[in-house]
Amino acid sequence: MSAPVKVEVGLGERAYDILIGPGLLQGAGAEIATRLPGTRVAVVTDENVAGAQLPALQAGLEAGGVAHTVLTLPAGEKTKSFAHLEEVVDGILSARLERRDAVIALGGGGIGDLTGFAAGIARRGMHFVQIPTSLLAQVDSSVGGKTGINSPRGKNLVGVFHQPKLVLADTDALDTLPIREFRAGYAEVAKYGLIDRPDFFAWLEANWREVFAGGPARIEAIAQSCRAKAEVVARDEVETGDRALLNLGHTFGHALEAAVQYDGARLVHGEAVAIGMALAHRFSARMNLASPDDAARVEAHLSAVGLPWRLSDVPGGLPDAETLLAFIAQDKKVSRGTLTFILTKGIGKSFIARDVPASEVLAFLKESHPG
Amino acid sequence: MSAPVKVEVGLGERAYDILIGPGLLQGAGAEIATRLPGTRVAVVTDENVAGAQLPALQAGLEAGGVAHTVLTLPAGEKTKSFAHLEEVVDGILSARLERRDAVIALGGGGIGDLTGFAAGIARRGMHFVQIPTSLLAQVDSSVGGKTGINSPRGKNLVGVFHQPKLVLADTDALDTLPIREFRAGYAEVAKYGLIDRPDFFAWLEANWREVFAGGPARIEAIAQSCRAKAEVVARDEVETGDRALLNLGHTFGHALEAAVQYDGARLVHGEAVAIGMALAHRFSARMNLASPDDAARVEAHLSAVGLPWRLSDVPGGLPDAETLLAFIAQDKKVSRGTLTFILTKGIGKSFIARDVPASEVLAFLKESHPG
Repeated sequence: MSAPVKVEVGLGERAYDILIGPGLLQGAGAEIATRLPGTRVAVVTDENVAGAQLPALQAGLEAGGVAHTVLTLPAGEKTKSFAHLEEVVDGILSARLERRDAVIALGGGGIGDLTGFAAGIARRGMHFVQIPTSLLAQVDSSVGGKTGINSPRGKNLVGVFHQPKLVLADTDALDTLPIREFRAGYAEVAKYGLIDRPDFFAWLEANWREVFAGGPARIEAIAQSCRAKAEVVARDEVETGDRALLNLGHTFGHALEAAVQYDGARLVHGEAVAIGMALAHRFSARMNLASPDDAARVEAHLSAVGLPWRLSDVPGGLPDAETLLAFIAQDKKVSRGTLTFILTKGIGKSFIARDVPASEVLAFLKESHPG
Repeated sequence: MSAPVKVEVGLGERAYDILIGPGLLQGAGAEIATRLPGTRVAVVTDENVAGAQLPALQAGLEAGGVAHTVLTLPAGEKTKSFAHLEEVVDGILSARLERRDAVIALGGGGIGDLTGFAAGIARRGMHFVQIPTSLLAQVDSSVGGKTGINSPRGKNLVGVFHQPKLVLADTDALDTLPIREFRAGYAEVAKYGLIDRPDFFAWLEANWREVFAGGPARIEAIAQSCRAKAEVVARDEVETGDRALLNLGHTFGHALEAAVQYDGARLVHGEAVAIGMALAHRFSARMNLASPDDAARVEAHLSAVGLPWRLSDVPGGLPDAETLLAFIAQDKKVSRGTLTFILTKGIGKSFIARDVPASEVLAFLKESHPG
């Protein structure tokens, strides 16, 4: 088997490596034993992932001589709660793990967010290893150290920044993903091109079929995405500035997720981001910031890969434009009453736009609305 | 009124000031409005402190034009729980505070620990202002950024490091403290002398009556304590090394607290630390590390101020030496099965002793045990 691709996340004392490639679950024990000698681990996963991936990881840990316990949680967004956070922390402490032992998240973004949070607060911070098993988690949550749970007031409103010591992105794990979930993750891959890597976006336009098929192009797309995010995060670890660029498509996207009441049958996060990115480009064109041709290019690519890209693509209909605006205004990225958006001057030329007039957003939503 | 004494805690980007003196509750609004312009605040306090101190703080905030909400929790150690953490976080989010708004802890160490933790995780970290109202909180929890709650597995096992933006140690608040609580806080003051400030310990031997009486000597003792702790914390913010020195007296002390089942009627934290410090010095003498005269000097000073200093001072009796050792071995500072203690070579010459043989500790406890 060829060596995995390595992406270094440069965060000084908190720097860590992301390894990307096939067979990493089986190699996890050896990798962890080398990097964190003597460590014991608690593996946190969910019921869905446990069936597909846990046996390979356990075999890998045993082969590497890494003692471990496993905590299996229910699958789904509802698991990102205070109750499950307490359960995971109690499980870690009950296993008598110490600060230098490690907590492993095996699963998608939700398991990663919850587990990273638990690792960040148990004994005021333990070692954390991420083994993301979805494309979305491999290209998004595995970089940046954001962890968290949901609150009745909104998603991801409670958490900490806690960087992993190591990320193992096993591309074999993606082979068992439903195509819809893979596509949703791909929206975040395309996002990195749209933020500030126009060449990467052009490469994706040419090579997306190979990325979906698997093999070297998929590994390359994941590695490029991780590098892109790592670069932004290294500039702004705790999100006081540039890191907001990563929210391209997310302000519209979060509003759509809220509008469908986070019903994943209708719209999953990556799909909401896809529509959000298309809207951000179209809105930028409407504001004469970008060319309509660039907006059309984004729409065409999202459409080609089978992602939704317009409001009418949301099954079951949406509330009216005023209600959507209200969802946007409740978004946590609204700062001191003004609306902040990530807008763009063209493909790969995104920027943080503060003080965007709510009236312009409302007019745009009315034009775009299918109702 | 004279200007407060200022102690700067040098933590680079996370540096902050501790102001020490009378009248700071009344001046809180002006101070916060100057340092954190435009901020809104959530004040978290407990039922006991609310009666004595909240009106002055609210008047101060109003005078400074700082909008605020108040969350009042039950008093006592049981409040340091996941349930109350969730309650405080939800209160902060319900008040629609943003990342640049502030959370104020008004109270003793428990309220400070819980509130700091909530401020550290709500929106992944909000501004935090501490207004400690006990001597213990002013000299201990106001420096260092440790926050946390208790777990069924032990005290303070869950939390984050989250530095405050500002600490206001209003010495007027200490006038309403019961003498037993003031004395317990004084144990931590004496601790700073014993760790590495022999001159400060000698000054306390000569001036402790004035410190108890109030006025400039009390302010000086608090300022010296904060400076001492700030120096250690600046060397080792997240406790990977030297910071463990601050645990002088705490390994024995925590075992005693556990042995009385955290029954504050029998033993409060500072009293347990006082006995723990005396034991640490006596044990160091027994190990031929320090002179017995130094141990006697520590015992004499603790006794003079009215603090307990030997095992027989714990009312209601203690379990046998083997059981006490078991409580010590469960202490979170036990690393990979070895016993770590803070021992000393004399007054102001403490050091971290790793691999202390459990058999020596047991023999010492048997000799010291009243039963």
